[in-house]
Parts: sequence; structure tokens; C-alpha cells
Amino acid sequence: MELKNVAVVGAAGFAGVEVARHILGHPGFKLVAVSSDSDSGKSLNELYPALIGKTDLKFIEHTAVEFIDGLDAVFLAVPHTAAMSMAPKFLARGIAVFDLSADFRLKDVAAYEKWYGVKHAAANLLDIAIYGLPEINRALLHNKYLEMAQNTAAGYRVAYTKSPILVACPGCYPTASILAAAPALVADYVTNDPIIINAISGVSGAGRSANQTTHYCSADENINAYGAMTHRHTPEIEQLVAWEAGKKLPVIFTPHLAPAKRGLVSTVALRIKAGINASMLFALYNAAYEGEMFVTLLPYGQMPKTSSVIGTNYAQLGIAFDEQSGVLIASCAIDNLGKGAASQAIQCANVVFGFDEACGLRTIPQIV
Amino acid sequence: MELKNVAVVGAAGFAGVEVARHILGHPGFKLVAVSSDSDSGKSLNELYPALIGKTDLKFIEHTAVEFIDGLDAVFLAVPHTAAMSMAPKFLARGIAVFDLSADFRLKDVAAYEKWYGVKHAAANLLDIAIYGLPEINRALLHNKYLEMAQNTAAGYRVAYTKSPILVACPGCYPTASILAAAPALVADYVTNDPIIINAISGVSGAGRSANQTTHYCSADENINAYGAMTHRHTPEIEQLVAWEAGKKLPVIFTPHLAPAKRGLVSTVALRIKAGINASMLFALYNAAYEGEMFVTLLPYGQMPKTSSVIGTNYAQLGIAFDEQSGVLIASCAIDNLGKGAASQAIQCANVVFGFDEACGLRTIPQIV
Amino acid sequence: MELKNVAVVGAAGFAGVEVARHILGHPGFKLVAVSSDSDSGKSLNELYPALIGKTDLKFIEHTAVEFIDGLDAVFLAVPHTAAMSMAPKFLARGIAVFDLSADFRLKDVAAYEKWYGVKHAAANLLDIAIYGLPEINRALLHNKYLEMAQNTAAGYRVAYTKSPILVACPGCYPTASILAAAPALVADYVTNDPIIINAISGVSGAGRSANQTTHYCSADENINAYGAMTHRHTPEIEQLVAWEAGKKLPVIFTPHLAPAKRGLVSTVALRIKAGINASMLFALYNAAYEGEMFVTLLPYGQMPKTSSVIGTNYAQLGIAFDEQSGVLIASCAIDNLGKGAASQAIQCANVVFGFDEACGLRTIPQIV
Amino acid sequence: MELKNVAVVGAAGFAGVEVARHILGHPGFKLVAVSSDSDSGKSLNELYPALIGKTDLKFIEHTAVEFIDGLDAVFLAVPHTAAMSMAPKFLARGIAVFDLSADFRLKDVAAYEKWYGVKHAAANLLDIAIYGLPEINRALLHNKYLEMAQNTAAGYRVAYTKSPILVACPGCYPTASILAAAPALVADYVTNDPIIINAISGVSGAGRSANQTTHYCSADENINAYGAMTHRHTPEIEQLVAWEAGKKLPVIFTPHLAPAKRGLVSTVALRIKAGINASMLFALYNAAYEGEMFVTLLPYGQMPKTSSVIGTNYAQLGIAFDEQSGVLIASCAIDNLGKGAASQAIQCANVVFGFDEACGLRTIPQIV
Repeated sequence: MELKNVAVVGAAGFAGVEVARHILGHPGFKLVAVSSDSDSGKSLNELYPALIGKTDLKFIEHTAVEFIDGLDAVFLAVPHTAAMSMAPKFLARGIAVFDLSADFRLKDVAAYEKWYGVKHAAANLLDIAIYGLPEINRALLHNKYLEMAQNTAAGYRVAYTKSPILVACPGCYPTASILAAAPALVADYVTNDPIIINAISGVSGAGRSANQTTHYCSADENINAYGAMTHRHTPEIEQLVAWEAGKKLPVIFTPHLAPAKRGLVSTVALRIKAGINASMLFALYNAAYEGEMFVTLLPYGQMPKTSSVIGTNYAQLGIAFDEQSGVLIASCAIDNLGKGAASQAIQCANVVFGFDEACGLRTIPQIV
Repeated sequence: MELKNVAVVGAAGFAGVEVARHILGHPGFKLVAVSSDSDSGKSLNELYPALIGKTDLKFIEHTAVEFIDGLDAVFLAVPHTAAMSMAPKFLARGIAVFDLSADFRLKDVAAYEKWYGVKHAAANLLDIAIYGLPEINRALLHNKYLEMAQNTAAGYRVAYTKSPILVACPGCYPTASILAAAPALVADYVTNDPIIINAISGVSGAGRSANQTTHYCSADENINAYGAMTHRHTPEIEQLVAWEAGKKLPVIFTPHLAPAKRGLVSTVALRIKAGINASMLFALYNAAYEGEMFVTLLPYGQMPKTSSVIGTNYAQLGIAFDEQSGVLIASCAIDNLGKGAASQAIQCANVVFGFDEACGLRTIPQIV
Repeated sequence: MELKNVAVVGAAGFAGVEVARHILGHPGFKLVAVSSDSDSGKSLNELYPALIGKTDLKFIEHTAVEFIDGLDAVFLAVPHTAAMSMAPKFLARGIAVFDLSADFRLKDVAAYEKWYGVKHAAANLLDIAIYGLPEINRALLHNKYLEMAQNTAAGYRVAYTKSPILVACPGCYPTASILAAAPALVADYVTNDPIIINAISGVSGAGRSANQTTHYCSADENINAYGAMTHRHTPEIEQLVAWEAGKKLPVIFTPHLAPAKRGLVSTVALRIKAGINASMLFALYNAAYEGEMFVTLLPYGQMPKTSSVIGTNYAQLGIAFDEQSGVLIASCAIDNLGKGAASQAIQCANVVFGFDEACGLRTIPQIV
Repeated sequence: MELKNVAVVGAAGFAGVEVARHILGHPGFKLVAVSSDSDSGKSLNELYPALIGKTDLKFIEHTAVEFIDGLDAVFLAVPHTAAMSMAPKFLARGIAVFDLSADFRLKDVAAYEKWYGVKHAAANLLDIAIYGLPEINRALLHNKYLEMAQNTAAGYRVAYTKSPILVACPGCYPTASILAAAPALVADYVTNDPIIINAISGVSGAGRSANQTTHYCSADENINAYGAMTHRHTPEIEQLVAWEAGKKLPVIFTPHLAPAKRGLVSTVALRIKAGINASMLFALYNAAYEGEMFVTLLPYGQMPKTSSVIGTNYAQLGIAFDEQSGVLIASCAIDNLGKGAASQAIQCANVVFGFDEACGLRTIPQIV
């Protein structure tokens, strides 16, 4: 297997270092650079002693990544609004960009600008960006591999596609929410009523930045709702719902915070059309995820727990249906830094570069 | 102030020992006995060294409590189905019973028997039981005090009412859920759509019984949904909704577990009738809780956190409204062992015995 | 009881807000001001919603506290090196100062300047500062009360002593360590060998400042040693050991951090002179703490746990002795913000102002 | 690589399932059976949904493992006293036994019987049991491989050594403690004074059994000392100290519990002979662990944290020396279920079966 050279921009942050961790253990990727503006000059294992003996890489500055020769891909794990000015530079050089920020997730530039409060600096790329949820967009990701293969066959040294490879890696809440809702939406089983989504995330979802919210003494022994109606993942979920349902549906999304490092549960309440019963729904979900190696449907009525998926790319999913009211509860557990961020980006990169989709991701989860 | 003699039956459990803790610090009640069948003979402070220097009471057996002279009240903190056979014995002797189990919460005996899977042994008492949520049933509780006062004035030695005093103390999820929903229901602002309730509880909600769910290594770093459609608090919430709305409405209740000792957030999604806007809703909630000393409405859009109410009888409440879809999110944080169990029982007892309703409950919460 | 007016300087921090919490619930003190330079203008309950309904005080700037009329006492909960320039101003106006920083704890100005790396700005006050551990210095604290009483009797309007009242409130590790070691030291049972102290603290010991150490995702699920040989509480423990033993003894102090908000265990290993056995040691400790309302000696061999003392001023203590090697293990659990900081300051203030020493501190601990 | 067939007896417990997890991801071992008396008939992934998609093995009863054909090795993860009657049966059939219980750790049968309170049922095996700490006993483990290789070369079908292969896998506290102390002991730098060891473990060290100690609401937000002078790992540490020092030295061991699932820090205080300074000690430790792939010495004075080693077989180690008192602090962090139990057993098995010692154990640790 020819190694692909990759760099992680913003590797001091939680999602970034998790990408780096996966790459260090991946047989097809070679980690050639990590960057951090605030920690440049330090070694990765000084910041994270867990990596002593695993890598001696030192952080370089973000801008220095642009000048590395022979890069096949970069993972951008920088804050929203920072990625949109970086991506074009890498794309121009034929480097595949896997962006973990929100900058290329929304197709609607107006929605982006409203929710993120800034003008989009690379709106022209929104069309070509592939929303990197392989269970939904596997074909688009795979096409990029096919294009690359053609180029290689044609004798081009640089194997890249003529159109750039820009993957907008999904947010954590949208990933779990749409995995829970998609089968019912696709089957057109859902009414036009608002979809009520309540989700709970561990603290790493708030990132590595140290503030009163992420202070141990604020987060520990505390459960809270936050950002009702105002969380920025709302338009991303709405976009996904519209794609899967083929129609625009109102989404009411209320995130919560719970005292755990990692893990996210999204519990989705969907109104189901008359005539559908519990076993039809279970059969539908079963069929939808039967071949998906990273999504497990639990027995009917059993609800998922995050401890089964921490540190991995797996999602676990449970459903229950109230026939009287016609409400379906579908609840999905993921690791917000795994399937909700870093390992999903690796999953996308596996598809794009033609590796087995699970390459480097077949972790046996830590059980205790 | 004449001290009232009280006993706690089942004081080794979490709710029971929390009642005992409140009584030990209460100027109007005297803790004369605590019982535990499994720990009888041990002292309370052997089980809980935090109580060294606070009490030397030893646990007696449950049945021994029946023979204590001069008891004014008992708090039953025994499992569901155990309380219903104990309550009549105390009531027969003119002793006020504050039952923290579910045995007398549901007025509909058929619902009880369906959800709890046993025949009710004291169904005749369901009618006289007062559902002990003072913010809803303060008048009924206060009437008991007035009846007692009359008896005393009439020269009766035993101050009790002719009809027994049986208070069915509410469940934790129902308490938080109805505090969140009640103002909108009472005002008839709510449509007939299903009410979607998602709640998150700390582990003490599962009780002191040691099992794989309450094992530290299962609960820590884990967030999970459970009991969707099947949790026993569902009919209790439905009953409360029907009382407040004046009509039966479908309730879809999904509880979750998060790694905290205490604390519970219930986030309720209600469909609001056309013509109602956010400021009307905020004004409604503000008016509803203005005079309530234990319920705090946060500024519009601010969501509550459990860390503000742990160890206390307080509830904090936040609302947000989506005018487009007409969905109101009302989220309420309580301490599941406080307002959700033990301190709410004390609050009820304060009203019944004519103490200031906040007597012994004006804790300044621990902030860090 | 005539209320004493007090202010808390630095009340946004953990120790400061804990002092404020205790004062809000104290029958003898009135909280007239709280200060915070970073949060001035905000209300205390905006920062800490747990205090909604408890106080409407707003933070003022530190310097504004100096101009408040009628202050009886200030609690300084500001960082080390900040307190030493504030204290003289209050003392000059006859206001009692309870300083929770380290600035007046060490009698040896050279030791202070070596360990804290700054020149002491008020070294002249070190002699008059009373080290505020009532179990050791109760008499000195009480003398201040007697002096005040004399002044009042003599008709002075301002009741203060001629010499200022400056109480240097102890550090958390020194408090637990000396409570564990003192009886053996005072009895001269201890050899000249190094005293080995290992202690474990919850995260609030690191203060409210948000940084990578206090970030939830660093502290959670992590146990670590730190600052071996270099922690600033070392000279404070050495000073206490020398006071109690009447001789200078080497102290090897290794602190550890564990994932809890509050709580501190200090486990002290002392070499005991020949001829002393376990029952003599237990009798010694028993006698030493028999009359101490805030220190509980557990049965021989039983070790203490922090969950018994969280939120309180209590200390619990266990000992075990290995007769073969002559090593005594004495382990003491406190709440680092309670007996290790804020409530101990209140305990001192109670003595100084002639209140019952336990006034406002007879909390029944939260058990679950 | 020819796969070796292995079974895990007691695979429902924490150490057992962690062994199973490692074997499932190991290229040289095949997991052919898992046993649990209490859960036999259930599948491993029913108990631990994290394993859905990873294995469909069902638990069989312990005794059924004895009748499996073609087993190369068993891992015994059963309680102390249960393993000693199982081991001989497997050994008699030429199956290598890796025992994670304490039954074969102590060479002194009297010490075993005193500390474990039972008569040893297989005392004759104590001599041949190899204490499975590869950093100390690598040669003994490797000899077993050489013996096997000879047998195979000689044409025996069963490749086993004539003398049975019984590896007594070390306890968690002894592993961390001796890794911290060994270099100084081996170099004969240590005086005859008592060695003071304080260690802190996460809750999984108490096993999967659900009781009041392991209940979330007891363990969370609690730090406590326990078992001072009486913990059963004491004689095991004493034996290791005697082996490494070449002389018997008193050991005072005080374990503590902290609220984390996994992780263990042991902080060892050693009195060092005169004439040794800090840089000599650091050079000594550096040399001792330079070639050890699983033990990392941190820069002088930096103390280790468990979060760097969770889920792995790694140990991290820090030292600091007080030249005045001659006390060396050496602190070692491991994962109690990793290097302290399951992965160390795998490391031993790798040596015994001639695999690369790190085979299956080169995990990149989870960083956040």
C-alpha cells in the first residue's frame, strides 16, 4: 500500500489530535506535519504525554503547512471561519481537504452567514464540497476515488481529480440526529409536523478552549440544556432532513451538556403517518443499516449508550414507537470526537483514497 | 414551636436518608426513628459516616415503627408496592403519612396495576391521597392543616383530621416535567398534539440498590436513553397534564441517564396554538411563578442547569419559543432527591403542619 | 445578636464565593459587599445562578471595598501576593482581616520570598498575624475577642483591639496534614525521620481560573501526582510541624490531583519512637480530638473519605499503626474549600467575634 | 503466523473482558471460548454491547472450558482462591495458564494463607509459577518459549514444555510500585528504612461486583484512603522489594480510591543512602528503562498522570529527590486493568509464545 502523506492543521485541539491519533495508527496514511499557532515549536507529545514513544513531530505554524511538498491530504481542524480561507490554498495545489469545521457544510451561503455571523470567503466552493457522511454520500466520495484512479491510469504523476476534493465533515449533533431520522425520512413515513430533537453531549464537544463552561468545577456534577432554538447545528440538521425527506421540515433542536469527556446521544421524535406500525418501522431501520459496518441497530425498544462507542467510529441506534400517538423515538449514540468528528473524517478519507472504508477504524472498543 | 415527632421508614435508601437529613436540620420536626430491614441494628452514622456527631439513631425494623408512641408523621421511603400495605396502619392511628413511593400517586387504579404489575392493596385510599406538589395542590395540603387546627381548638388531644392525611409525594420526572409545562397547559395555550418530553437524570434516581446499572464503571462516562415509552413515570405525567390542561393529551416520555450523582433536567416540547408569541409566553410563565419561592424562571432563552439546585428544594426553569413552528421548549432543572423527592416531601409536611412552607429548606446552595 | 458587617474581596473565586455562601446563611454576619475586578458590575447571582433569590448584591471593584463605612471584617480571597498590599489598609481602619491567601501564613519572611518568588510588602505584619487554625490557635483568636470586649466595655465606639486583627487562614493541604500529625507530634512520639505526606485534592483546589489543568477533559478520568518537593504548601506544613513538635523535622510532601470538585485527603506517615503501641496511639488521638466539634476520629483502622465532609467544616481522621516498622499512618479528609479554606475562616471569625464557634457551620452534610 | 487458540475463564469480569478485548484485536491469538458461571448462555456482546459486530461468542460455564480441544492457553480471570483449583487441570493437559488472580503470586505459601485466609490447594505449583512482570522476569518467560521451540523441533506434536507453563500475573498496585522502586533497589541505593507507598486507584480495581463501594453514588465525588496496613497487595510488594533489593525491607502500603473508572498512580518514598544525588538517580532510572518499550521515564521532576496510559499497556514514571533529607519520590502511573492486569498478561503471553513482545499492544492511547 502506497502511503499517503497527510497533515493536520489545528492538531492541538481535540478533534485535531484525535485525527492525528487515528492517522498514527493507520496503515495507509503517514502523518507528515501537525500545526498549531499557539503551540508551534512544542512537540505533540509534550502537549499530550500519552504520545511519548508514538511520535516526535513538533507543531509548526498553520501557514507553514502550505509549503510542505508531497502532501496528499490535509485535515483542517481549525475553528469555524478560519477554515474557509485555508481550504482554497490547499485545493489549488491539488491537495485533498477534509475540513472538520462548519465552513463548507451548508449549501446555502445565506444560512451560513446568518448562523455564523460572518461573510463566507469561499462561497464558490460550497457547491463542490461533499458533505462527508459516508452512509449518505458514499457515492460522491467514491467518485472522487474513481476520478483519481483514471488520472493515475492516464499517467499523471499527481493523481488528483481536476475538480478539487473538498470534504465538509459533519457536525456531531447532525451526524447522530440524521442517522436516527434518515430511514423514516427516506421512506416518506414522516408527517409535516416539527421534528423534535433533544441531544446530550459530553464536554469535549465544547473544544479544548479553557473557559468557565469547560472548567471541571462547572461541568462536573452538572446537567444542563443550552442553546434551545439557537444552536448552530440547527441549520445543518435542517439541511440533512430536507435532503433525506425530499421536503423542508421544521426542526426543533435542544442540545444538553452532561459531565462526560466524550459521547453524544441524540433522541429524535418523529410523527409517523397513519398506517405504519412498530414492526414496519423496525424492518425499515433494519434494512437501512444492515450493510452499514459502522451503524448498529439495537433490538427493538433497547436504547443506546455512549459507553459502547467511545473512542470509535461506531454509532448505535435504538427505536421505539407509540402506535396511539404515532410518535417514533429514534435515539443514536456516537462518540462526538469519533463518528461525530475525527474518525468520520478518516472514514471519508478511506473512501476517497480507495482504502477499505474501515481501514484503521476497526477498533475493539474499550469496554470498562 | 412544638416539635412534631416523625419517623422515616426506609431511611437507608437515598430518598429516605435525604428526608432524615432534612429533618435533622429542621426546627419543627424531631426525628424519633429510622427504619431499615436490611440494616436494622446498625446506626445511621455507621452507614453514613457523614452523620457522625449529628445523630446516634439506630435503624429499627420497618414493623417496629408501627408501635412507636406519639408519632405525628411518617415518611415512607420504601419501594413501590411496599408502601401501600404500610400506609393504612399508620393512618389508622391518626399518623400523617408522606409516601415517597408511587403507590398513591395515580388516581386510576387500573393504570397503577398495569404499569406496576401488581394488584393495589389499598385502592380505597387513592381518593383521599393528596398528590403532594405544593405548587399545584397547596390548597388541599393547607386544608389538612385547617382541619387539624379545628380539632385542636375543639380540645382533641390528637390533632388529626377525621379523614386521614396521606400525601403521595411526586416522582422526580413528573415534578420537573409538570413545572415546565403547567403554565402553558393551564392557560389552554397548548394544542392537542403529543407532548414530547426528554429528561436526563443523575444516577441516584436509580436508588441505592447496587447493580450493573448503578456500578460506577457502567455509569461513569456514559450517557444513555432508556425506557422510551415504557417508563413508569409516564402515566403520572399524563395524569398531571390532564389535570392542568383539563383534557387528556398524549405524552411521549424518554428518560436518559447521565453521570452525575444528583440532578435532573426535563425538557418539554409543547405545540402552542396560533396567535401566541414569545413575549406572551414569557409573561405567562413569569406570572405563574412570580410568587413561588421554590421555582425560579430564568431570563427568556436562558436554559437551567442542575448545579444551581443540587442539595436544595429549588427548581429553575427556562423557556424558548419558535414562532415559525409554534413549538415551545420549557426546560426545568431540579435535584431529583430534593424537589424531586425528599425536600418536596418536607415542603408538603410544612404546609400540612402549618409551618412556614420554606421552613428548613432555605438552604444556600453549594456553588462550586 | 448584633450583626457584624462583612465584605468578601475576591468573591467571584471559589474560596470567596464559598465564604459568601456561608455568610449569607450565618445569623451573626451580614454580607454588605462582594468584590471582583474581572466581574465588577455583574450581580453575584448572574455569575452563580444558584444564588438567585438569595442575594442581589453586585460585585464592586476591590478598591471600592476600602471606602465602605461600618465594616467590621473583610475576608480576602484574592491570589497570593495581592492580599499583602490590601490587608494594611483595612487594618489601619480597625477592620478585622481574614486573609485566605498565603501572604501572612509563614512567619519566616525569607521562606515566603523564596517559595512565592516576590518581596513581601507587609512583612511587619507577619508577627501579629494569627495562623487561623482554631484547633491549634484557639487561644490567640479568643484573646482578640477579649480585647474587643474590653474596649467596648470601656466605651469605645469602635470595638477593635489596639493591635490589629489579622488572621492568616491556613492552606488546605496544611490543614489536613497537621490535623493528622499533630497529636503524635505534640506528644513527642515522633522520631527525627522525614515525615512523608501524600495528599490528594479535588480540582477546585486549583481555583476558578480556566486553564488546561482545570479543563474538564484534562481533569476527568485522570489521577496524577504533581509538584513533588516543589509545592508551596511545603514550608507551611514544615512550620506547623515545627510548632507542634517543638523541633524542626523534614517534610516530604507530594500532592496529587483526582477528578472530584471538592475534597482532600492527606495521608501522613510518621515514624514513632520505640515503646509506643497502637492502642496508646489511638488513645492519644482520641483524647486530642475528644472535645473538638469539627474533628472526628474514626474507629481504629478505618480510613476517612471525603464524601463525608463535602460542603462542611468537618474533618474526619483515621489512624493505623504498624508495630514492626513503627510507622503510623494518619489520614485526614476535609473539604478543601471548607475546613481547608472558607468555612475555617468563618470558624475563626466566630471565635474572634465571640459567636459560638460552630455558629452557621452546623450543616448536616449531604449524604448522597 | 500460526494462531494460538486461547480461552478466557471469567470473561464477564473487568479484567477478563479486557483480556478478551485484547485477544480479539491480536493477530497471533484466536479467542475460542469465554466463560462465566453467572452469565453462561448469554453472548459476550449482550453483556457488553460495545462488542456487537466484534464477536458472537457466548459465555460457557467455567468447567466446560476444560473440555475444549486444541487450546494453547487459558487466561484465568476468576477471583482469588478459585484459580488455584482450576490451574492444575489445564496444566495437566499441556495448556499454558496465565492466571490474573493472586493465587500463584506469592512464593511463600504461609504468607498466602495468612493474607488470603484459605489453605492453598496447589501449593506445589508455587515454585514453578513465573511472576509475570516482563520487565523483571523476561528471561524466565522467554525460556518457556525456548523449551517449546525445542520440543517442536524434536517433532513433538504438542509443543509444550515438560514442566508446565504457569504465569502468575501481577497485581495492579505491585506492578506500579515496583516499576517505581526497582532501579533504586537493584542499584542498592536504598537504606533499610521502611518504604512508604501511597497509591490511588480508579474504581474498576474493585471489580465488576456491584456493592455499596462500587455504587456510582458512593464512589463519585469521593476520595478515600482504605486498607492501611491490611491490603492484600502488601505481601506481594514486599516480595518484589526483597527480590529487587536482595534483602527484606519493611513496606508501608496505603491504597486510596478516587472517582475514575481506570488508572492507578503509585507514589513511592524511598530513603536513599548518603552520597547519591539527583542526577545520579535520574541517570540510574534512565538507564534502567531506556530499552523498555512499555515504561517511559518523564523528565526529572515531572510527575505522571493516568490519562496518558488509560486503555494501554504503558507505564509512565517520574522521580524527584530531596537531597537534604535523602528521600526519593518515584511515582508511576499505569492503567490498573492494562499494565496492572490484562494487557500485562498479554505481554507475558507474547513472550511465552515467541511473538513480538508488543504484538497487539501498540495502541495509540486515546488522548482526550
